[in-house]
Amino acid sequence: MEDVAIIGIGQTKIGEQWERSLRNLAVDAIQAALKDAAVDHAEALYVGNTLAGEFTAQQHLGALLADWASLGSIEALRVEAASASGAAAIHMGHMAVASGQLSLVVVCGVEKMTDTDPAIERGALASAMDAEYEAMQGLSLTASSALLMRRYMYEYKVCHEDFAPFAINAHKNALGNPYAQFHKAITLEDFKRAPVVADPITMLDSAPVADGAAALVLCSGELARRSCSKAVYIRASVVATDRLALHSRRDPLFLQAAYVSAHKAYLQAGIGPSDIDLFELHDASTLLAALSLEACGFAPRGKGIRLGQEGQIDLQGSIPISTMGGLKARGDPLGATGVYQVAELIQHLRGEAGANQVRNARIGMAQNIGGNGATAITHILEAPY
Amino acid sequence: MEDVAIIGIGQTKIGEQWERSLRNLAVDAIQAALKDAAVDHAEALYVGNTLAGEFTAQQHLGALLADWASLGSIEALRVEAASASGAAAIHMGHMAVASGQLSLVVVCGVEKMTDTDPAIERGALASAMDAEYEAMQGLSLTASSALLMRRYMYEYKVCHEDFAPFAINAHKNALGNPYAQFHKAITLEDFKRAPVVADPITMLDSAPVADGAAALVLCSGELARRSCSKAVYIRASVVATDRLALHSRRDPLFLQAAYVSAHKAYLQAGIGPSDIDLFELHDASTLLAALSLEACGFAPRGKGIRLGQEGQIDLQGSIPISTMGGLKARGDPLGATGVYQVAELIQHLRGEAGANQVRNARIGMAQNIGGNGATAITHILEAPY
Repeated sequence: MEDVAIIGIGQTKIGEQWERSLRNLAVDAIQAALKDAAVDHAEALYVGNTLAGEFTAQQHLGALLADWASLGSIEALRVEAASASGAAAIHMGHMAVASGQLSLVVVCGVEKMTDTDPAIERGALASAMDAEYEAMQGLSLTASSALLMRRYMYEYKVCHEDFAPFAINAHKNALGNPYAQFHKAITLEDFKRAPVVADPITMLDSAPVADGAAALVLCSGELARRSCSKAVYIRASVVATDRLALHSRRDPLFLQAAYVSAHKAYLQAGIGPSDIDLFELHDASTLLAALSLEACGFAPRGKGIRLGQEGQIDLQGSIPISTMGGLKARGDPLGATGVYQVAELIQHLRGEAGANQVRNARIGMAQNIGGNGATAITHILEAPY
Repeated sequence: MEDVAIIGIGQTKIGEQWERSLRNLAVDAIQAALKDAAVDHAEALYVGNTLAGEFTAQQHLGALLADWASLGSIEALRVEAASASGAAAIHMGHMAVASGQLSLVVVCGVEKMTDTDPAIERGALASAMDAEYEAMQGLSLTASSALLMRRYMYEYKVCHEDFAPFAINAHKNALGNPYAQFHKAITLEDFKRAPVVADPITMLDSAPVADGAAALVLCSGELARRSCSKAVYIRASVVATDRLALHSRRDPLFLQAAYVSAHKAYLQAGIGPSDIDLFELHDASTLLAALSLEACGFAPRGKGIRLGQEGQIDLQGSIPISTMGGLKARGDPLGATGVYQVAELIQHLRGEAGANQVRNARIGMAQNIGGNGATAITHILEAPY
């Protein structure tokens, strides 16, 4: 197996981008990544996208974006794993280069969510769950997260405001990220006063919809060592799954896929949780942040929220998370999110994260989660310097 | 790069399967393939599917099918490239094993098309084209094929009935395939009398919608040589693309992606068109059969239809096509089609194609096409005996 490096990153501003269509956003990100890598071509393009068919009646994004990014007749495919589609595309790019078949590929995550009817949007988001056993009963994705959060609060005897540090940290860190959807610090009072979406989940627990695109240029380690001084290396890329419907899981508060994916990644990289300098986790809700920290070995069951209360998730803490705003405040353009997470790790590993820089960052982990946790994809990256 | 073998195949009957949902069809095919391979587990599942989000409000098929096929917490992802999604999933499985990362994976193509409203179906199929520049003008996928067919007839001075041999051959071969959608031979008279869908395309030019699923078990060559006497080897797996919108192509009658994909595959396998013993091409329309034969080097431009008229596409001809019925008569469950094509090649290469057996078949080629040709994926398989 060849080793794989990332030599270019590109991100667009996240938010309501009514003047840019899906293809424009994606091409902006791809061109920025190619420029950052100082290359003008690629052998393949892997696109992470969740719902372009539902939102903009456009499938076949591989061919569309290879065409609009002027990449020629190259291999181009789309990968989907609900909200983990971005990391799925990175995983595919990693496989292509690791196989020795290709040596220079582009990965792009893109989602255009704000140009659609809210009813279509809710239905489309529910397609990440079991359509026949969950969505068909009227359960929405946020409502099912709310059931889980209520159960967590009951099981571990915690209250809603115990989750506040995750949202406050995310919003604070987004202030230093020019691509973030929100540039607005929030207080504990704001968190307590936020309108309810699905009790107990409020507007400040959950990531909103957004448009955005991010891209990466991957190449063989050999090529990177020859031609790129700022390459960052992929030390692990692991996909794992769990039962899709919540009612099928033995313990819905344990993210089995996140656990398996992270621990296989630790094995692949030959490290443990204590070696991770920063962790971009999938805080689609504050609850998911807590569950991810627990599944990945940073806290015992039921104690994930403590890391927030103790300030360990801050930029100077023992395990900084949502360092550029996370899903909550950087934004969550579904299929693009996993690519943003890895692009942000690279900003830190290169020492280019500006005011948000995690000091001496050498090893970063990102975890992208599909739906309620049925898919989890973990990447571990390392800077060689 | 490791070499990759296919050691198991599974197919469901194609047609209107109202009593089986998408997950049932897929699990039937996966279990049949595992049984055929005599294994009871896999390290990953790659799903080819085009429109489950639009047709059945179900995304996240990787996790869903790994769950329902009882495969455990394994890596599971869905790949999409419009109607070439099935071959895209095979390509991904090939990469995973070729990279040396995994040694035993399942690929499943599945589509459930008949449980939806015909208007939704037409709109969803159009998402394979350029949504903003083609579909938004009211152009359907079949209508755009009709424009191409009219142009072909004008450019090469041929008439509609010159395309008849493709449909007649497909329907004849489907008689020997128990999984085929149609078991009904047709005559030249039937072809001439068929109702028009989009002039000049008739019911007997184009493949209808259908439900179906097919699956393959892939493993490393090393594992296959140790444990499987009927393994068939993947000698080439190549994805290529073209401009998405027809109006962007310099010559819409030349399938650039099919040309690039086939010729790179020949290079990878170290062979040429004359070495191919049978060719499962993407006859979504009789026109596409002619264009594919031309792009892949079996006939000069404008002469693809001659291979039909001269009987060279028959089971005993120089280049047998649609040997188990092709898209036209075996059926075309979009994301499953590319997997059916490869499963059928394997039937021949194992000598298990029954009445349809192509004699002394040793090297087979399959080409799966997305939309109007913007994606083409070519696989070349070889039997070692």
